[in-house]
Amino acid sequence: MHQLSFPLALSFAPGGESRQAALVRQLKAAILTGQLAPGDRLPASRALAAALGIARNTVLLAYQRLQAEGFIAGDRRGTRVAALPLADARRPAPAPVAGMLASRAGQLPRRSGDALLPFAPGVPDLNAFPWPAWRRQLQHAWGEVSARQLVHAPAGGEPALRAAIARFLRLRRGVDCSPEQVFVVAGGALALDACARLLADPGATAWLENPGYPAARSAFIAAGLKVVAVPVDRDGMAADAERWQVQPPRLIFLTPAHQYPLGAVLSLERRLDLLQRAAPGQCWIIEDDYDSEFDHARPGQRPLPALQGLVADAPVIYIGTFSKLLYPGLRVAYMVVPRWAVRHFGEALEALYRAGQAVEQRALARFFDSGRLLRHLRAMGPVYRRRQDALRAELERRFDASAILGGQAGLHLCLRLPAELPDKAVVERAAAHGVVARALSDYAIDAGDGAHNGLLLGYGMADEAHIPALFHQLAAAF
Amino acid sequence: MHQLSFPLALSFAPGGESRQAALVRQLKAAILTGQLAPGDRLPASRALAAALGIARNTVLLAYQRLQAEGFIAGDRRGTRVAALPLADARRPAPAPVAGMLASRAGQLPRRSGDALLPFAPGVPDLNAFPWPAWRRQLQHAWGEVSARQLVHAPAGGEPALRAAIARFLRLRRGVDCSPEQVFVVAGGALALDACARLLADPGATAWLENPGYPAARSAFIAAGLKVVAVPVDRDGMAADAERWQVQPPRLIFLTPAHQYPLGAVLSLERRLDLLQRAAPGQCWIIEDDYDSEFDHARPGQRPLPALQGLVADAPVIYIGTFSKLLYPGLRVAYMVVPRWAVRHFGEALEALYRAGQAVEQRALARFFDSGRLLRHLRAMGPVYRRRQDALRAELERRFDASAILGGQAGLHLCLRLPAELPDKAVVERAAAHGVVARALSDYAIDAGDGAHNGLLLGYGMADEAHIPALFHQLAAAF
Repeated sequence: MHQLSFPLALSFAPGGESRQAALVRQLKAAILTGQLAPGDRLPASRALAAALGIARNTVLLAYQRLQAEGFIAGDRRGTRVAALPLADARRPAPAPVAGMLASRAGQLPRRSGDALLPFAPGVPDLNAFPWPAWRRQLQHAWGEVSARQLVHAPAGGEPALRAAIARFLRLRRGVDCSPEQVFVVAGGALALDACARLLADPGATAWLENPGYPAARSAFIAAGLKVVAVPVDRDGMAADAERWQVQPPRLIFLTPAHQYPLGAVLSLERRLDLLQRAAPGQCWIIEDDYDSEFDHARPGQRPLPALQGLVADAPVIYIGTFSKLLYPGLRVAYMVVPRWAVRHFGEALEALYRAGQAVEQRALARFFDSGRLLRHLRAMGPVYRRRQDALRAELERRFDASAILGGQAGLHLCLRLPAELPDKAVVERAAAHGVVARALSDYAIDAGDGAHNGLLLGYGMADEAHIPALFHQLAAAF
Repeated sequence: MHQLSFPLALSFAPGGESRQAALVRQLKAAILTGQLAPGDRLPASRALAAALGIARNTVLLAYQRLQAEGFIAGDRRGTRVAALPLADARRPAPAPVAGMLASRAGQLPRRSGDALLPFAPGVPDLNAFPWPAWRRQLQHAWGEVSARQLVHAPAGGEPALRAAIARFLRLRRGVDCSPEQVFVVAGGALALDACARLLADPGATAWLENPGYPAARSAFIAAGLKVVAVPVDRDGMAADAERWQVQPPRLIFLTPAHQYPLGAVLSLERRLDLLQRAAPGQCWIIEDDYDSEFDHARPGQRPLPALQGLVADAPVIYIGTFSKLLYPGLRVAYMVVPRWAVRHFGEALEALYRAGQAVEQRALARFFDSGRLLRHLRAMGPVYRRRQDALRAELERRFDASAILGGQAGLHLCLRLPAELPDKAVVERAAAHGVVARALSDYAIDAGDGAHNGLLLGYGMADEAHIPALFHQLAAAF
């Protein structure tokens, strides 16, 4: 028997491999690692079968497969390892690309904290949601499923859902739109991504609120945009004439209804100023109507309607999601684009992304139409308001009321901390007490200057009866 | 009564507006369009109420809201329109950004054709899928849902699904992976997007097969990469040493198992050559294992296992989707990354996208574990093979066998057309006959040279008994 140039004993990969597959895998590995060199002769099938204690046919089939794949070549004189370009293929040294990936990962803002622990911001009360009703809608939608709903959907989404969203936004948020202006997309991150990629070229200037939404920053950085940090004051994003001149933007991302994370409302003067400066058509305004579903302002203090609805046909993209109205894992968001942009936006969106989830979208449309979703929304308003009041009361016992920001809408409050309490250290200590707070400095674009030191505290999941005890846990971190 | 400077008659927006909301909207519009100028006095509430035939309280509340929003200001002497920066906000002229969007839309490859008409490529037989079993798994997963599954999932996906995919790929495709190397993402387009954005900087060089997958081209163009068209011959992508020197790539996208759209199998020599050249770690290979689920090759001709499994730890990202195993609208795909890239890739993915659909992922994992999904896969192999045979027989009656390409795997055949039958004209005529074919020239990167003239013909949905009649419809377009 011809001696194999390496010891072969059949061993099996985890997961249940056949003998033939194991033999093929091991012979390949031997060839690829150079244990078997080009030109080396393989043992006769009968001899190898005997040595391994397996059927000869198994060896024959393994050789046949290795030959079909090009690893070995057979002629009358026997079976030999093929001549293959193997010089350095044995052990890659992926240092440069690995380093690049690591630096890319380091560049992007990090998310952290368990979303289900107390005070994690941005999570609605998942226990209060009418799950049975939602499951029934899903079941119903699956019951009437057709092939049409299982292939890729045209960009924009299911017509019934687009219509329901347009109606909802017109009535609740003063958005000026018809259903064909509404594009349903797979989540808020995708909406930001589409803006960054379809509305600007790499290298273009994008304005972001500072502090601001990290996911918007990620999307813009990833699209190669030049991010400009615009300060925020009590009237929202504060962009003066000089900035317009020196750093003219292609994109402006902002959260006018309830600035994320500080909670300021963009004043009417600033809204109109933005729209006027955008009117010549050199830039897009991206209005993220973040958190506007749950509006806690008292009568006479209703939040301003959407900026989008102020001036017809302005270059505004309005963004919203169902993450808080239903649940974050649903991954359904929507964008409202100006009438004059509908056609090209739709074409570009369709070229870049594939739409699906038509069944879920139909269930969602029916959920709207049944009135059940809006009933849930109305029921949750006072619940969240009570939770906010309870959290605010705890905060006010320890901090000056002026340090507590936001709260006109949404599911979190923002607390400014004194310099001697660095937010990241507090967050770390809080985590040790089983409580999640998010550091305000994580939202700052230039975190180095320490101008934004504070905490974001979510109250979506916390029953107000438990808030004092939970806050006690958090307070241990101060 | 003070005379309003414009005629006001209450009219209601579609969708059911309250009187108060209608009045607020109309007064705002009058202010924003300049019909009411800054400083103009508004009529007394009582007088306006009488004139419009509505309750005085409605007018008072409308004024209150307009004041809260900053549109009007009240003092002892009455209510006046506020001074607002309105100069040019009335009618935007969005020409420049609209033009930019249009050119972006024009740059991106277009998709077309109804996916449910005969010969539309890339659609599996949605009628043959075991829907009741899948619905049961979904229902079961919803039945045991917890809050944890409804918030954003960590990048990577549900552990049970990652494990099922790793097992499937190890056994069926020779992919060298453990579950933590598998990242479940929301669709194949997102996987391409993640590669384009996380593995390269804008301006970097990306190689694509020519003709090749338009969605990859879209993703790379949108990420600002420089796309280099690499020709394809019968052994797959043909990149010679000169190209490596002159246009060294950061990314190489390819479909080694069954080149999309021509169907060539990348030879072992070329696989090893690619891996060897990539070994110094200056570039990434993106292996799209497109269509490998349905493998029609006869015994002894089994398609080569994945390139990814040839050399351990090579800089290869392996991509696959569930679009054909289940349905395109599901939007679940997966990426397998090298061990050394797992941590940074996961971090970057998590910063850039938000994962969800945990319930669907759990259903899918159970579907795998139950064996039902693989039974479906095995059952469909012979079905698709018969359909392909029927289509091939029709094609061979009219065209030389050498004009028919591909068919070792997947759900389409490629037909090269003679120059006197320009593919786009054939596609257009076919559409008029209710048949969808896709033009091969749509897959060419430089479509101008006419080198790629042909049709992609899908047979996934077509029963073989109907193929002759359907082909007759198509043949009318020749």
